[in-house]
Amino acid sequence: MKKPWSGRFKEKTAGIVEEYTESISFDRRLWRHDIQGSIAHAKMLAKQGIIGNDDLKKIIDGLHEIHNDIEAGRFKFSDELEDIHMNIESALMEKVGETGGRLHTARSRNDQVALDIRLYLREEIEEIIALLISLEAGITDLSEKNLGIVMPGYTHMQRAQPVLLSHHLMAYAHMFDRDRMRFEDSLKRLNISPLGSCALAGTSLPIDRQYVAELLNFDSVSENSIDSVSDRDFAIEFLCNASICMMHVSRIAEELILWTSQEFSFIELPDAFTTGSSIMPQKKNPDVAELMRGKTGRIYGSLFSLLTTMKGLPLSYNRDLQEDKEPVFDTVDTLKPTLNALTEMLRSMLFNDKRLGDTADEGFSTATDIAEYLVKKGLPFRTAHEITGKIVRFCIDKNKRFVDLSIQEYKDFSSLINEDIYVSLNPYESANTKKSYGGTSTESVSGQIKRFKEKLASIKKSWGG
Amino acid sequence: MKKPWSGRFKEKTAGIVEEYTESISFDRRLWRHDIQGSIAHAKMLAKQGIIGNDDLKKIIDGLHEIHNDIEAGRFKFSDELEDIHMNIESALMEKVGETGGRLHTARSRNDQVALDIRLYLREEIEEIIALLISLEAGITDLSEKNLGIVMPGYTHMQRAQPVLLSHHLMAYAHMFDRDRMRFEDSLKRLNISPLGSCALAGTSLPIDRQYVAELLNFDSVSENSIDSVSDRDFAIEFLCNASICMMHVSRIAEELILWTSQEFSFIELPDAFTTGSSIMPQKKNPDVAELMRGKTGRIYGSLFSLLTTMKGLPLSYNRDLQEDKEPVFDTVDTLKPTLNALTEMLRSMLFNDKRLGDTADEGFSTATDIAEYLVKKGLPFRTAHEITGKIVRFCIDKNKRFVDLSIQEYKDFSSLINEDIYVSLNPYESANTKKSYGGTSTESVSGQIKRFKEKLASIKKSWGG
Amino acid sequence: MKKPWSGRFKEKTAGIVEEYTESISFDRRLWRHDIQGSIAHAKMLAKQGIIGNDDLKKIIDGLHEIHNDIEAGRFKFSDELEDIHMNIESALMEKVGETGGRLHTARSRNDQVALDIRLYLREEIEEIIALLISLEAGITDLSEKNLGIVMPGYTHMQRAQPVLLSHHLMAYAHMFDRDRMRFEDSLKRLNISPLGSCALAGTSLPIDRQYVAELLNFDSVSENSIDSVSDRDFAIEFLCNASICMMHVSRIAEELILWTSQEFSFIELPDAFTTGSSIMPQKKNPDVAELMRGKTGRIYGSLFSLLTTMKGLPLSYNRDLQEDKEPVFDTVDTLKPTLNALTEMLRSMLFNDKRLGDTADEGFSTATDIAEYLVKKGLPFRTAHEITGKIVRFCIDKNKRFVDLSIQEYKDFSSLINEDIYVSLNPYESANTKKSYGGTSTESVSGQIKRFKEKLASIKKSWGG
Amino acid sequence: MKKPWSGRFKEKTAGIVEEYTESISFDRRLWRHDIQGSIAHAKMLAKQGIIGNDDLKKIIDGLHEIHNDIEAGRFKFSDELEDIHMNIESALMEKVGETGGRLHTARSRNDQVALDIRLYLREEIEEIIALLISLEAGITDLSEKNLGIVMPGYTHMQRAQPVLLSHHLMAYAHMFDRDRMRFEDSLKRLNISPLGSCALAGTSLPIDRQYVAELLNFDSVSENSIDSVSDRDFAIEFLCNASICMMHVSRIAEELILWTSQEFSFIELPDAFTTGSSIMPQKKNPDVAELMRGKTGRIYGSLFSLLTTMKGLPLSYNRDLQEDKEPVFDTVDTLKPTLNALTEMLRSMLFNDKRLGDTADEGFSTATDIAEYLVKKGLPFRTAHEITGKIVRFCIDKNKRFVDLSIQEYKDFSSLINEDIYVSLNPYESANTKKSYGGTSTESVSGQIKRFKEKLASIKKSWGG
Repeated sequence: MKKPWSGRFKEKTAGIVEEYTESISFDRRLWRHDIQGSIAHAKMLAKQGIIGNDDLKKIIDGLHEIHNDIEAGRFKFSDELEDIHMNIESALMEKVGETGGRLHTARSRNDQVALDIRLYLREEIEEIIALLISLEAGITDLSEKNLGIVMPGYTHMQRAQPVLLSHHLMAYAHMFDRDRMRFEDSLKRLNISPLGSCALAGTSLPIDRQYVAELLNFDSVSENSIDSVSDRDFAIEFLCNASICMMHVSRIAEELILWTSQEFSFIELPDAFTTGSSIMPQKKNPDVAELMRGKTGRIYGSLFSLLTTMKGLPLSYNRDLQEDKEPVFDTVDTLKPTLNALTEMLRSMLFNDKRLGDTADEGFSTATDIAEYLVKKGLPFRTAHEITGKIVRFCIDKNKRFVDLSIQEYKDFSSLINEDIYVSLNPYESANTKKSYGGTSTESVSGQIKRFKEKLASIKKSWGG
Repeated sequence: MKKPWSGRFKEKTAGIVEEYTESISFDRRLWRHDIQGSIAHAKMLAKQGIIGNDDLKKIIDGLHEIHNDIEAGRFKFSDELEDIHMNIESALMEKVGETGGRLHTARSRNDQVALDIRLYLREEIEEIIALLISLEAGITDLSEKNLGIVMPGYTHMQRAQPVLLSHHLMAYAHMFDRDRMRFEDSLKRLNISPLGSCALAGTSLPIDRQYVAELLNFDSVSENSIDSVSDRDFAIEFLCNASICMMHVSRIAEELILWTSQEFSFIELPDAFTTGSSIMPQKKNPDVAELMRGKTGRIYGSLFSLLTTMKGLPLSYNRDLQEDKEPVFDTVDTLKPTLNALTEMLRSMLFNDKRLGDTADEGFSTATDIAEYLVKKGLPFRTAHEITGKIVRFCIDKNKRFVDLSIQEYKDFSSLINEDIYVSLNPYESANTKKSYGGTSTESVSGQIKRFKEKLASIKKSWGG
Repeated sequence: MKKPWSGRFKEKTAGIVEEYTESISFDRRLWRHDIQGSIAHAKMLAKQGIIGNDDLKKIIDGLHEIHNDIEAGRFKFSDELEDIHMNIESALMEKVGETGGRLHTARSRNDQVALDIRLYLREEIEEIIALLISLEAGITDLSEKNLGIVMPGYTHMQRAQPVLLSHHLMAYAHMFDRDRMRFEDSLKRLNISPLGSCALAGTSLPIDRQYVAELLNFDSVSENSIDSVSDRDFAIEFLCNASICMMHVSRIAEELILWTSQEFSFIELPDAFTTGSSIMPQKKNPDVAELMRGKTGRIYGSLFSLLTTMKGLPLSYNRDLQEDKEPVFDTVDTLKPTLNALTEMLRSMLFNDKRLGDTADEGFSTATDIAEYLVKKGLPFRTAHEITGKIVRFCIDKNKRFVDLSIQEYKDFSSLINEDIYVSLNPYESANTKKSYGGTSTESVSGQIKRFKEKLASIKKSWGG
Repeated sequence: MKKPWSGRFKEKTAGIVEEYTESISFDRRLWRHDIQGSIAHAKMLAKQGIIGNDDLKKIIDGLHEIHNDIEAGRFKFSDELEDIHMNIESALMEKVGETGGRLHTARSRNDQVALDIRLYLREEIEEIIALLISLEAGITDLSEKNLGIVMPGYTHMQRAQPVLLSHHLMAYAHMFDRDRMRFEDSLKRLNISPLGSCALAGTSLPIDRQYVAELLNFDSVSENSIDSVSDRDFAIEFLCNASICMMHVSRIAEELILWTSQEFSFIELPDAFTTGSSIMPQKKNPDVAELMRGKTGRIYGSLFSLLTTMKGLPLSYNRDLQEDKEPVFDTVDTLKPTLNALTEMLRSMLFNDKRLGDTADEGFSTATDIAEYLVKKGLPFRTAHEITGKIVRFCIDKNKRFVDLSIQEYKDFSSLINEDIYVSLNPYESANTKKSYGGTSTESVSGQIKRFKEKLASIKKSWGG
């Protein structure tokens, strides 16, 4: 097969070079976007009189045929033709002859590939946003349904204060909502058409870039042709956002793994969401959550991969940029099923509410309530904290719980303590006193969930959902 | 010195542990923000009747004194007091006695440190945005001033097509403007007050979080107390944005290094911006640009540092989070001087316009113009491309330039070629034909600069500049 | 102060440039190695007749004085003199006049700094190896002392099979021993003298590089002067080894954090190794282990920092290389206290052996023993595995433990099962049947510990310990 | 298809879970090693009397059949069977019935997969070492052949001193030789058999691990079964070594890209090693070198991916470890063709020796020779350096080269300068005076090449080459 750029070359490309430089093995994934972009480009060329209308018709028909061929699996991709752009162009020329050679007018693979990835990523980011919204909705539902469950809140993996399970779960809803926002913000920078930047300099032909942009639903056209073919910010920004999102996933996955351990026993995963062992017959493993946690490395690695590739590259297009695609593809292929599986797993999970409540009642987790009790009686917080610390010390030494102390024992620590202290020692009551905005009382959490649901509803609406 | 939390402890902290866990050696940098936050918190406590007005006065006076002590360098920071929060609180208690112990009411170090970093980063991000605006303005001025210079545009580090130097420079203005946008977007997620989330659960005391937020100029208060003390997204997002920005810096730095090489000789750096060699007397090295490129690793490293630290952490606060500060501080300390030095260096640079123009005229960089010439005469681009490729091949074999070919020689390749072909072969003319939007003609680039300046003006206005 | 390289320069370095490029704020740490190297270099210059013996004496005396000045804290480091090399050289010239100017003969800062870091890192790596040996010895002692404790072995954070606590601990001894080996291997590539490579080309002066190498205890001299000044492999290899080592630390830290949680309650950390909360009076947090885990990010970040910096650098020395020092210094400053604190913490830890044994007895962790029992009776493993799976299923449905099943119930699953099955169901017995090499029986683990101690003894001997 | 571990499960695995957790799509690559390991394991089981000899025969025959099926492309891999181990085991049971179920005796997938990757990586590392040796030999040949070419040596991308091209090239030979050493060192830690560690605890069956290790050519067996199934050090160490190696590749790639630029014009790449442009007919791009540089990100990313995955994992096996394979595979698939392509490209490269020599003669690159000349006449180096700096300054102001100055002009700077100064000003002579060990004189470089070739010869011998 003749390379479209072979005019000035005497020797054929070495086989080893073809293999090393081909991208068709992975960029074929962009075929829909490549054809979509070519059709818009051809329409513009015709509108501007750069090609004739008959040429336009032939080109569009040819591209539709190729579309159908690829969809039907009968298109033959060729390594020799390097990439998706040349594979499709070459097929077009086979189908419509010389006319096909008019399509690449006022266009270079440099702006074409920038276009294709932008079209591709726009689509994928929109899907990721939809998956995030589902996940957030799933967490919100779960939180609403389980509002009555109290559990130990942790700091340093030590039981700290009783909290509502729903409050704990909603923390993740807020994380994923920030992820959604970041992905949405990135669209502002992504949804700009680079087409017409050509190799790097623009063109002397009378093209209409805005028209192409409109056909392809872009918000605007890029301002600088050199920047347009050199820029991969949008891909890195995507990988940044995906990395932060996956970091959140790794945190909830870690918790799900801990919670399914016999030591915690906070939740039960259904058989359908666990796997067994080839040697140990009793095992039921939370593999999905483990893989989610493990795959965090994969997405971080992709981010670092592209940051490295871009470091120190002079302008404008360099072949190094070809290495932008696989980290982006792999991240899409990792993040989407992960978000989906997480949503499903959360939906199918069973909470062991008795165990959650019992553990919330152990380990002096209402100590802060005693301190705040003393503050309300007029003590400076530091003094209150110290007195409570001594009560804890006393309980440990005597092997007692707070509820086991007599009112006299309490009074030995501070005469300000009265019978009403015992109310604060119940974990559910304790949680319910935290009525501060964003706090863990049923009242605060209900408000939080209500506001979050309203927000989600309005977001869904803005996405036409 | 007694630790504020020592009530329940029997043994003193081991020396090795104090050394290992202290953060005062680096978080002391947050002292202003810590005091600022404490004053707002105290005002709220008084407004809500949680502390008396006399206590408030004492606390504020005490904090002002501490402020002055630190500013004057007479404050004694203590490792034993672990961090900036306890250092200041302890000093306050020394100054105002037991009343100082009322300040930490309805507050934990967990929400306090989250507050401090947010206040700190808000300030620094605003400074970085200002530095980016200066840099962008500098590049725009430089581009406007040098609009007449043509240079070779490169792809694959090979001369590709003649472009205007201003067009090449403006590519960087657009990159840095995207950086500015990203930093601005991040403020939406950063500028939210976490104070009042306390340890993780909120509080039973009747606090008013919105009031604190207003005093500290936050847009809103956080919705979930667990999330508030566990979240470091804002720090990672900052490091992401800084990494992308530094990647841009590494690219321009690479170009400045190449351009000052004897081989390129495109620019001359003034003595004041270069350094010499301890052994080679003739050397004049572009050290500043090299260090800019080298420091890219530092910022990428900080991003990966924090991403790693956050991976797989269960909720809520874990001591691992203490490791968020140094990567953020180092990034601020690297990025700000880098942006500043780059602005200054660009301002002081001298362009070798003759050399730039001459090289634009070498190496067949107007080949694409011949191809587009043929397209305008009706040939399909692919055919035009191939013919031009053969002309190039012919020139190489005969050791001729395009301008050296006779009209007859041209006609041997295509009868469509006429005398007017020679116009396209002048690099300046060639650049000027690229009148497509965002292209490299003087007309397009002037428009680009004009629009960019208008945008900058409106941004400066929105920042009160 | 006049820069030693100012001969060809007309303008003074800009202040902003001096600040941006100085390294004295961090490379002053190399002062001992710089002086040590200079003394060896001077001795060689004299031996070769390049400088006179009187000059040598003056230079050495001057350098000793500077050594004492720095040690006593009365040396004034100057930013204007950029780095440690020029600071010391300049001080020498002040002390001994023009003679000091003879020291830098046949030497450049390029080979000098390469020498300094190699000397520095050799010392630090040797200390790290010693710390690793102590840690390994500590773990071995702990394992030997606690040989009688059985605990649940985990896969997927699910109880899998009973194992000896000592066996679990010894897993870490092997990890840290591989770290030791890697650090030792790296010394082969580190302990090579670059001095005499000068700027990049070597010198026309009759130097004796081997002699300097011997004075400084290097194994050999480098073979290629260009490589010698461009190479930072030794620093990256150090960061690689430190990263793997810190990854091991993060794993044991994670376990210690889990084990101190109320849910596991496997160990108790002494007060001296924990810290409290500013708000929650009952808290006792495993901060040291958390920070160890968190600091993993820091060392990974440093590795990626330097890998990024080195990417794509043309030969030979570039100023980017200055960025090699801080990641290396920070890694040394992180890793050494971490290894030390880990050794101390392990020493002070108390095991809750009853709790460990009890949990080993729960959750069907001897299921594999039943399957192996059936294999010994002649069943294919797969069949045995399946039968055991059904027994587990039966127990779960009936809410029974293995020991609760009657022999008839067992026989209903397989007639091959006899009374002797009950022996395998005791976790300690179960562990003790794993007599395979490297397995968890007391016999195997004792042998493992014995061999490990012999290895450690021989290693210590080779290090003169 | 029934899962081998389905005994205790009531529900089928969810489809979404099967898809998310399957590894057969990538670990099928290990099929040879899996079968190889299974055969050795089966032989041991028979030798120890754990299975009968008839069973052994059936198993081996079955495995050979499967081997042939896979090789011939007629094996049907199933996602439902998760991984390569279960795919093969299941096929074996189909072929030989219940007997196949005896193979997995005293083995778990945990130790099996550790075995497979070790076998795989051993093979690949040996191939990589061979590729490195070829590359080193190629560079050495090139250096030997081009010993007469002088070129400018660079520091800070500024011409520094004349060096021999061969000396510059040999710098890379030394880098790649350190890579080879590191890969070799890693084999010591890799070539240890984990088989027989089973799930994590070892086994009660009377296995002979040493025998398996011998059959599979391992140096020894692992000492601790828990460590054996949790350890991925060997994979990370591989990725570390690959990252450093690829960093070296990125440096030579950067140089080749620069050297093929019109500005440098140091080398010409043959057509067969370049590619063209879809729009610019004159372009001839060094794509292979660009992709090499770009792919550096990919390998760094893989290293960071696995380091992240391993961070903070508790013992022993966790499903996260499944994520070890793809970064390793991708790195093998990147590094091997890269090393191969680099060897080929270097072989086919043409040096423009005239251009190299001419540029070595420009830009005062012999200034250090003047300084060393003055040192030989007795001046302190610092004084000599300063005088030379002034000569450079004078030449720049007068627009003269060193050779243009009259002897009187030289004497105006220092009366020590005589006519023999002009000898040092010839770049080739200049290079040849650098006779220090490892320096750039023809004599030194010849010695260097000779020693390197001897080393390579002895290495090849040790690898049986």
